[in-house]
Amino acid sequence: MLAACLALALIPPPATPNVLLIVLDDAGYGDFGFTGHPTIRTPHLDRLATQSVRSPQFYVSSPACTASRYSILTGKNPSRSGFGTWVLMPGSQPHLNPQEQTLAEVFHQAGYRTGLFGKWHLGFPNAANGHTPLALPRAHGFDEWFGIPYSNDMRGGDYPPLLWIESTPGGTEPVPGYRVYQREPDNRLYTTALTDRALAFMQRPGGPWLACVFHPMPHVPLTPHPRWAGTSRRGPYGDVMEELDAEIGRLVQEAERQNTIVVFTSDNGPWILKGLEGGSSGLFTDGKGSTWEGGIRVPMLVRWPGQLAPGVYAGPWASPDLLPTLTRLALGRATTTEDGVAVDLAGDGAGDRLLLFHGPDNTVTAARWGRWKLHLRLLSQVGGNYTADEPPLLYDLEVDPCESRNVAAQHPDVVAEMRAMVAARGR
Amino acid sequence: MLAACLALALIPPPATPNVLLIVLDDAGYGDFGFTGHPTIRTPHLDRLATQSVRSPQFYVSSPACTASRYSILTGKNPSRSGFGTWVLMPGSQPHLNPQEQTLAEVFHQAGYRTGLFGKWHLGFPNAANGHTPLALPRAHGFDEWFGIPYSNDMRGGDYPPLLWIESTPGGTEPVPGYRVYQREPDNRLYTTALTDRALAFMQRPGGPWLACVFHPMPHVPLTPHPRWAGTSRRGPYGDVMEELDAEIGRLVQEAERQNTIVVFTSDNGPWILKGLEGGSSGLFTDGKGSTWEGGIRVPMLVRWPGQLAPGVYAGPWASPDLLPTLTRLALGRATTTEDGVAVDLAGDGAGDRLLLFHGPDNTVTAARWGRWKLHLRLLSQVGGNYTADEPPLLYDLEVDPCESRNVAAQHPDVVAEMRAMVAARGR
Repeated sequence: MLAACLALALIPPPATPNVLLIVLDDAGYGDFGFTGHPTIRTPHLDRLATQSVRSPQFYVSSPACTASRYSILTGKNPSRSGFGTWVLMPGSQPHLNPQEQTLAEVFHQAGYRTGLFGKWHLGFPNAANGHTPLALPRAHGFDEWFGIPYSNDMRGGDYPPLLWIESTPGGTEPVPGYRVYQREPDNRLYTTALTDRALAFMQRPGGPWLACVFHPMPHVPLTPHPRWAGTSRRGPYGDVMEELDAEIGRLVQEAERQNTIVVFTSDNGPWILKGLEGGSSGLFTDGKGSTWEGGIRVPMLVRWPGQLAPGVYAGPWASPDLLPTLTRLALGRATTTEDGVAVDLAGDGAGDRLLLFHGPDNTVTAARWGRWKLHLRLLSQVGGNYTADEPPLLYDLEVDPCESRNVAAQHPDVVAEMRAMVAARGR
Repeated sequence: MLAACLALALIPPPATPNVLLIVLDDAGYGDFGFTGHPTIRTPHLDRLATQSVRSPQFYVSSPACTASRYSILTGKNPSRSGFGTWVLMPGSQPHLNPQEQTLAEVFHQAGYRTGLFGKWHLGFPNAANGHTPLALPRAHGFDEWFGIPYSNDMRGGDYPPLLWIESTPGGTEPVPGYRVYQREPDNRLYTTALTDRALAFMQRPGGPWLACVFHPMPHVPLTPHPRWAGTSRRGPYGDVMEELDAEIGRLVQEAERQNTIVVFTSDNGPWILKGLEGGSSGLFTDGKGSTWEGGIRVPMLVRWPGQLAPGVYAGPWASPDLLPTLTRLALGRATTTEDGVAVDLAGDGAGDRLLLFHGPDNTVTAARWGRWKLHLRLLSQVGGNYTADEPPLLYDLEVDPCESRNVAAQHPDVVAEMRAMVAARGR
């Protein structure tokens, strides 16, 4: 990483690079060519990986959609959201508090155009909250939004119709400032439509931009574009992943033509409860809905040509660090949050920070500190405990990333110190 | 892959490329940066992967040392060896039959210099076989050999001392044509010593060459060079893997200076029975000693700059195909074997061949046919059956590489057809 340090020292970073933040929904750590999947083909992301700082020890703070997205956008642990739950429903009263500082607000205030293309899932105007427009993205720093308000599978049955919404100053539906572009949209067109809108935003003249492309896929229901259906070896899940790869390739190519920091990640581990309609966490244990590594360890690539030398950022970091890290990288200034720090991606990783992982009620169920992972409560949507031992469990994740050997009995001092630190932090 | 086809069509392949075949011992599919390991750093192999045809569906015919190496060197299934067992012991009577055609013989007959650097494990001259020199590499097409005769851990207790042997025309120990270079060698110097010898062989003037570098590591005991001990995040296993990566980097760099086909693979899956002293099979089930995918699916890279476009060979193939494939690639002519075919690495893979996988007595325990994997008998050194169903079990490996859903009941026709094919082939 010396090369990157020198580059940063010798070449003044170009003012105001654009930022493209791509987040998939439920894609697993193991679902990519660059992480060894045998039948899913992801040539564009594989190429991006070779050009990026890869972080094989990146975490989301919660293994579920709303909570994870909260941590990405605010730089805070989901325990601070006040939601009290992992996932907001279309009829939920809570929404992202407008007093929270978001990534979009930080960049908007720095003169950036800010756009969200895809899934929001941090609130919805409904009877329970008096149909407040504060529940939607424009109240949180995004100049524009085109996408869906909650999860892909929240449609039919007890749910209201799924809506494809776009922000429009004169719009009135579902609340002022928006319009319903389509009711019960054709899921098969999500990925291409979001790419097209994001590309138009990126190519529009005027100022630097922050584009957040939050794809609703590969979250079930799996609905590849008709051009992709049946084309992969991995069935519908592979079709969707390969379509995403190709569409992300279009975004990444456009980013390459401009001065752009590209970040690629997923909001949580694969939804293994869905069987072959879900992905793979690779060598990690369990998946979405679990604070075993498979639920919270996700792919993370950061590319900035000429400024960040391709390589590996080896240390653990987590979704609350994204806001401070991107702020320092792009804007050259520190923006602290309660739970995140600006990570030096050209370094090798600070090993002794405490990272907290959260359960369904947004309380802490597991923690990472340096090489150690402590489980205070075992979570698994598929009922896997993977050990006969009772919590607290301790794993040395640098040596044992699969969490195969509980070493709590060998390291009671580490268990005690981590329990005390978790108790002191509280959230 | 069109680019590769055109390249092959337009540019006549250079006559007599060198061939460097690197085989690790017990390295797992998931133990590399390019397959997503989070803490083992393999920058040289990651770079090689980006320059190679990667084969994420490559198999060894047996999940154990001798049997797998037999299949690599002869192009035949281990059921044909007559060994009757997976692994030969220092005192075993059987050895590789001199009437068998080996990879080294094919290349030797084509005018190549042939060298083996590292582990042999296909026989040893001992009382049971009358101390025959036919048990060692020079009787099987290798002009020279420097390395160990059997496994790394076959030392002490009931075993004879471990020997570091080199071929020498005037040598007499343990049999004529060899000398004992060192008795009870320092395991920590294996990897560098083999690299040095192989490099000297590769750099010597005269003719094209075939260099087989069969590292005894990361098979236990894990003994990194003192320079590498304690330097990795993954403990002694990581130290050994990162040393191997760096030493392989030296070989690959030299290969780059010449016209050389580089092949990189492992002899079987990780020895997970050894816990943290063994590796990881990534998303696959089980490891060494099992014909679940983790025991037999291994990394496979083939690099030939200017002749093979980097990319993915997507279809399944197996160790008996190596001899015919390398023969066609390097020598431009077909060499058939009982069980192997010349695979077109610039293509997408023939999907309908039957591949057979073998148990401890070298009889068939599992088979692959196109997308399907059939288990006739469940094997696991760690006692994992991973299913409540009784064999035969059927998995759709393209969609379900983790072997999580037995679909035998849904596809009785496939089960019946595969059973019939296995019975007809017999071995």
